[in-house]
Amino acid sequence: MRFLSFSARGQRGLAYKTQTTWLGLMEDAARWPGDLDDIVRSGDYVAAAEALKTGKPIDLEQVTCELPFRRAGKVLCVGLNYADHASESNMVLPEFPTVFVRFNSNLVSHNADLVQPKVSAMFDYEGELVAVIGKAGRAIPIDSALDHVAGYTIFNDGSIRDYQLRTTQWTIGKNFDNTGSMGPEFVTSDEVPAGAKGLRLQTRLNGEVLQDANTDLLVFSIADLVSKLSIGMTLEPGDLIVSGTPSGVGFARDPKILMRPGDVCEVEIEKIGLLRNAVVAEA
Amino acid sequence: MRFLSFSARGQRGLAYKTQTTWLGLMEDAARWPGDLDDIVRSGDYVAAAEALKTGKPIDLEQVTCELPFRRAGKVLCVGLNYADHASESNMVLPEFPTVFVRFNSNLVSHNADLVQPKVSAMFDYEGELVAVIGKAGRAIPIDSALDHVAGYTIFNDGSIRDYQLRTTQWTIGKNFDNTGSMGPEFVTSDEVPAGAKGLRLQTRLNGEVLQDANTDLLVFSIADLVSKLSIGMTLEPGDLIVSGTPSGVGFARDPKILMRPGDVCEVEIEKIGLLRNAVVAEA
Repeated sequence: MRFLSFSARGQRGLAYKTQTTWLGLMEDAARWPGDLDDIVRSGDYVAAAEALKTGKPIDLEQVTCELPFRRAGKVLCVGLNYADHASESNMVLPEFPTVFVRFNSNLVSHNADLVQPKVSAMFDYEGELVAVIGKAGRAIPIDSALDHVAGYTIFNDGSIRDYQLRTTQWTIGKNFDNTGSMGPEFVTSDEVPAGAKGLRLQTRLNGEVLQDANTDLLVFSIADLVSKLSIGMTLEPGDLIVSGTPSGVGFARDPKILMRPGDVCEVEIEKIGLLRNAVVAEA
Repeated sequence: MRFLSFSARGQRGLAYKTQTTWLGLMEDAARWPGDLDDIVRSGDYVAAAEALKTGKPIDLEQVTCELPFRRAGKVLCVGLNYADHASESNMVLPEFPTVFVRFNSNLVSHNADLVQPKVSAMFDYEGELVAVIGKAGRAIPIDSALDHVAGYTIFNDGSIRDYQLRTTQWTIGKNFDNTGSMGPEFVTSDEVPAGAKGLRLQTRLNGEVLQDANTDLLVFSIADLVSKLSIGMTLEPGDLIVSGTPSGVGFARDPKILMRPGDVCEVEIEKIGLLRNAVVAEA
């Protein structure tokens, strides 16, 4: 199943993709199934899809795409999870997942603008696969880890590199307002190979391919991440695991390629979708 | 003003301290002012106090203390913010605040049990002062930064050291379930010196004083933290800045002193209160 959050005329809407079209309801509809944060907590994907199929066709060009998730309890981002990216960053490949946090509040949706801040010109892209937790658990064995993944979406983990690397902890440079993006579609696990393996991931800046990898190259697979990240903390429905970026980021290039106002950045993952954002300067 | 969240007979309650006693209301009261997360967002401390003053005397020994805040949008923890702690940890004193994140979900209240996990015996205490954001802002000038601080509470940033230091990012070891604590009181800014300066902070394990410092020793003061942390991200009412721990943590001692089941850890900050927790083993 594929779902997409949108808004139109000041109301939230949710759409479901049939073989031929998107069908959707607005939040004032009698059969409104809740937003995706609600649905991933209830697990009622089938009921939500049935309700949305009674809705009207949605022309994605005529509505505003919204973030699939706005109330994730945790947005757990994994660093250095592709060997060639760790290498290009002059960092050692970790023997355990390297995890930092983003807040929901700095993410923008598909087609919304990413904002280059005034205080830095070091705004970099990072295309990533997101696993959405659908079932709570702690110390989850790797063999059953994928049972805890409801589905997937796409992330651009936009990073302000000078602030990210200003201290040992990356939090500040990873959490500038309006520097990350997510979406547009939430794709349930059954739509992709187990663990979202074998999917091509591309990041393009103004059409130029700058990251081109395959999710098979993840150092810690989605199942392994779910297992290891839950060793001490309970993962809850709606938590997001942003699985890391492959090589090709801008600040590791020579010469560097950084995002500038006027640029358009696209992250595309096979079978999951395409996330596009323009870049503007901070007002 | 001093407020305290509690529960009794399955209901939430909130108390206000008069000169002589705590007066409080339960959540089903007509004049229930909301919980502290609500009040810090509305800024209506005076109205909340007036409502609570119509309530009954609360015997803190007869109720269960609850976390003052459970829905902070961001829990921003500052590392290495006392020079002697950076030194004892063999870390360089940073020229900008070093920030990591904790999630609300792993914190327990005053008098609740901290849990030493099965997978580690390296459970360490960190007594800290928390500044509670009361007014939104970004790129806040240091001169007006304290206008954005609603008040203060106390934190024990309990840390699983082996997991904290297993990779470069500290997130995993700082977010084991039930390893941190906060509270019990929320004390508005007018109750303490500007910026909560000059307050003695002590951490005691089984009565032995292991951290004994003064908030004057913060490398980045509360005003400086509010200003620098907001350089790229908007701080929102209810966000928490956990300002860092002084020297004396257990893993830096020789021999090490780590928290074990049966221990009782207390963090006391002058004019703010006393946070006490026993330690139990993971079931």
